Amino acid sequence: MAQPFLSPVRPVVALLTDFGSRDGYVGIMKGVMLGIAPDAHLIDITHDIAPQDIALGAWLLATSYRYFPAGTIFTCVVDPGVGSTRYPIALHAGEQFFVAPDNGVLSYVLAQQPLHAAVRLSNAAYHLSTVSATFQGRDIFAPVSAHLAQGVPFSSLGEALEPATLQRLDLKLPIRQEESIAAHIIHIDHFGNLVTSIPLNMVPDLFDLLSVRLAFPARHLVISERRRYFAAQPAQGKDDEPFIYVDSSGYLAVAIRNANAARALGIQTDERVTLILKIV
Amino acid sequence: MAQPFLSPVRPVVALLTDFGSRDGYVGIMKGVMLGIAPDAHLIDITHDIAPQDIALGAWLLATSYRYFPAGTIFTCVVDPGVGSTRYPIALHAGEQFFVAPDNGVLSYVLAQQPLHAAVRLSNAAYHLSTVSATFQGRDIFAPVSAHLAQGVPFSSLGEALEPATLQRLDLKLPIRQEESIAAHIIHIDHFGNLVTSIPLNMVPDLFDLLSVRLAFPARHLVISERRRYFAAQPAQGKDDEPFIYVDSSGYLAVAIRNANAARALGIQTDERVTLILKIV
Amino acid sequence: MAQPFLSPVRPVVALLTDFGSRDGYVGIMKGVMLGIAPDAHLIDITHDIAPQDIALGAWLLATSYRYFPAGTIFTCVVDPGVGSTRYPIALHAGEQFFVAPDNGVLSYVLAQQPLHAAVRLSNAAYHLSTVSATFQGRDIFAPVSAHLAQGVPFSSLGEALEPATLQRLDLKLPIRQEESIAAHIIHIDHFGNLVTSIPLNMVPDLFDLLSVRLAFPARHLVISERRRYFAAQPAQGKDDEPFIYVDSSGYLAVAIRNANAARALGIQTDERVTLILKIV
Repeated sequence: MAQPFLSPVRPVVALLTDFGSRDGYVGIMKGVMLGIAPDAHLIDITHDIAPQDIALGAWLLATSYRYFPAGTIFTCVVDPGVGSTRYPIALHAGEQFFVAPDNGVLSYVLAQQPLHAAVRLSNAAYHLSTVSATFQGRDIFAPVSAHLAQGVPFSSLGEALEPATLQRLDLKLPIRQEESIAAHIIHIDHFGNLVTSIPLNMVPDLFDLLSVRLAFPARHLVISERRRYFAAQPAQGKDDEPFIYVDSSGYLAVAIRNANAARALGIQTDERVTLILKIV
Repeated sequence: MAQPFLSPVRPVVALLTDFGSRDGYVGIMKGVMLGIAPDAHLIDITHDIAPQDIALGAWLLATSYRYFPAGTIFTCVVDPGVGSTRYPIALHAGEQFFVAPDNGVLSYVLAQQPLHAAVRLSNAAYHLSTVSATFQGRDIFAPVSAHLAQGVPFSSLGEALEPATLQRLDLKLPIRQEESIAAHIIHIDHFGNLVTSIPLNMVPDLFDLLSVRLAFPARHLVISERRRYFAAQPAQGKDDEPFIYVDSSGYLAVAIRNANAARALGIQTDERVTLILKIV
Repeated sequence: MAQPFLSPVRPVVALLTDFGSRDGYVGIMKGVMLGIAPDAHLIDITHDIAPQDIALGAWLLATSYRYFPAGTIFTCVVDPGVGSTRYPIALHAGEQFFVAPDNGVLSYVLAQQPLHAAVRLSNAAYHLSTVSATFQGRDIFAPVSAHLAQGVPFSSLGEALEPATLQRLDLKLPIRQEESIAAHIIHIDHFGNLVTSIPLNMVPDLFDLLSVRLAFPARHLVISERRRYFAAQPAQGKDDEPFIYVDSSGYLAVAIRNANAARALGIQTDERVTLILKIV
């Protein structure tokens, strides 16, 4: 693999963690990075992932990485196993780089992008001189990301890893069965909208089908209203009824206009949902 | 209108949204921006506006824009009508630029600054190649802002709009009636301080008047203590009593020293308040 | 004192306040800074310090400043006395600069770093032209920090202060008594981990001692389990029991694996704790 193209302009490092904003952990990581890569752009994706929720971190990375420039370095630290034998790793996948613990947080990237190389971050020359057992975001992931931003060759970060050995989450892909798709709620966003695990490309004719119903078996709830955007006039239901739309991530979702659908319906992440199609 | 002066130094894009910090939406917008304007400064004003609270977004923009450099581009996305027929627009007003939906979020700017030009963002060349109906912050407002930061002429963003057609909120300006001013609580800040809609320039002699009372008619509450700063010694009341002061935005406000006045008094945004003056 | 070395690369300004993220106060400070220092890196440490909690601000600054590059300017605004007679000050300590109110928020820096110079920010040429009595973060601390970032000599910011006159918090250092150390909980982090005021260098052989117990006298709780990292297998206790570890700040701390220890144990900041050592 050739050293990938790095933008001649300022390198971008995008951070995604479960560190919250109260303790200064993210600021400390940025301090470390700027000591190494003084010209880098440091961009926050989110730091409000529920503590140690690897699956949520993986999903939020999946919905965002494509929108960053080629050459971006993603520093992803959701790491309940910090200090244990799980490896700190880096991937060069697609046109970007990913620095993270090897615990599945990069599962969607691995499923979606061509993998050019993977390394274990075993070269201590690119770590802080003292590495703690509890904050490797500061001691390993931040300095490695910054050295990469400064042009250190990817392969010098450590020993190559076999792709097959990388940890991957069970992504629980939706299952098509004749006229239905069995899926689950993969994310509830800030507005309370319920994002399902069903990508639009499984139902590209969503708005042309005569009948589509989204059923929540655990609570005898069936949603059939479809809208193209939040403020659309209801086709048949009332304005305060839940409706199906396509989330900006490209997945089918449920919202209630000007309300928090998750709260109104009492639905949580991981709840099972079935899309029932009547093909005409 | 001539193309306005853009700072020869790094352009500043300031973001104000109701997207919160959990979902990565703001990070995605920044990723899009850096792909177009790799040298821009991307600054957060706030992303914690209550979902779809256009009036609050307009107010927070009003209290902040003057403190940013000339040439700053404000990207303001509080947009319950996303995907509907409301226009995405941009203004060149005063020495700055504002990119937003045409829903009133720019009302104070329109009321306070000379408007040089307004355009509908109809030129798709400056949008992402695919525009969703649910996240135009990413697909329209971010790329347009970044192109503007890169020096694209304002007038090329789309067709010119007549200023009279722009949406404006009812700003509910305070009403002077002989010896009183009828107003409302326009904002409750992070410290629980209650900001009224009464600008100091309506009562420039606030601290020289013999008597000033702020009355909350709905709850038989009258505040007469005035202080120049939070830690000032009480003139007549006790230290834990509410007092009138001038908020940093230039508006009269109510605080309780070392306490959350909104919580202590049970007062919410929009509550009516009357300033009673005895001119001496 | 000679003018300290400033990095030839982009200056770093790191912000730490109790302003929260809702009101745009931090964004306004950054707008002011970029108008003066258009090439500065503006980095957030935290803005979620409990309102007016000077001790917490001092602690979070203490755990972070060492990780920022030499020449970094720290703008620290936790300032219940804003507008009163407390001085706005700046320190040149170690290889860095600190701009803050003189209320103790720099206590750890003063205790840990050689102080080269201290000034009262009395030179109004480096303030905004109008200085309010309620938001000196915007009107004094931000512009002074930015002028410093632009290379203004430290000594020109105002009159020199005698170090002995600077306000310092009682840092409540832990007290060693024969085989025990009397201390307190100094911080509860985002994960609910309880950080004590006992630095590891008071117990450098923590993991070699035969017996170590951490006692919370107020609640008859004694913790004896020690682990090197969160995911370590329990040595003797069960996996859901609290254990002692070394926090990334270098202080002894208490956690429960995959749980919020503060919530589970009902312990709050400032609670007294005793480390009982049996030296072998």
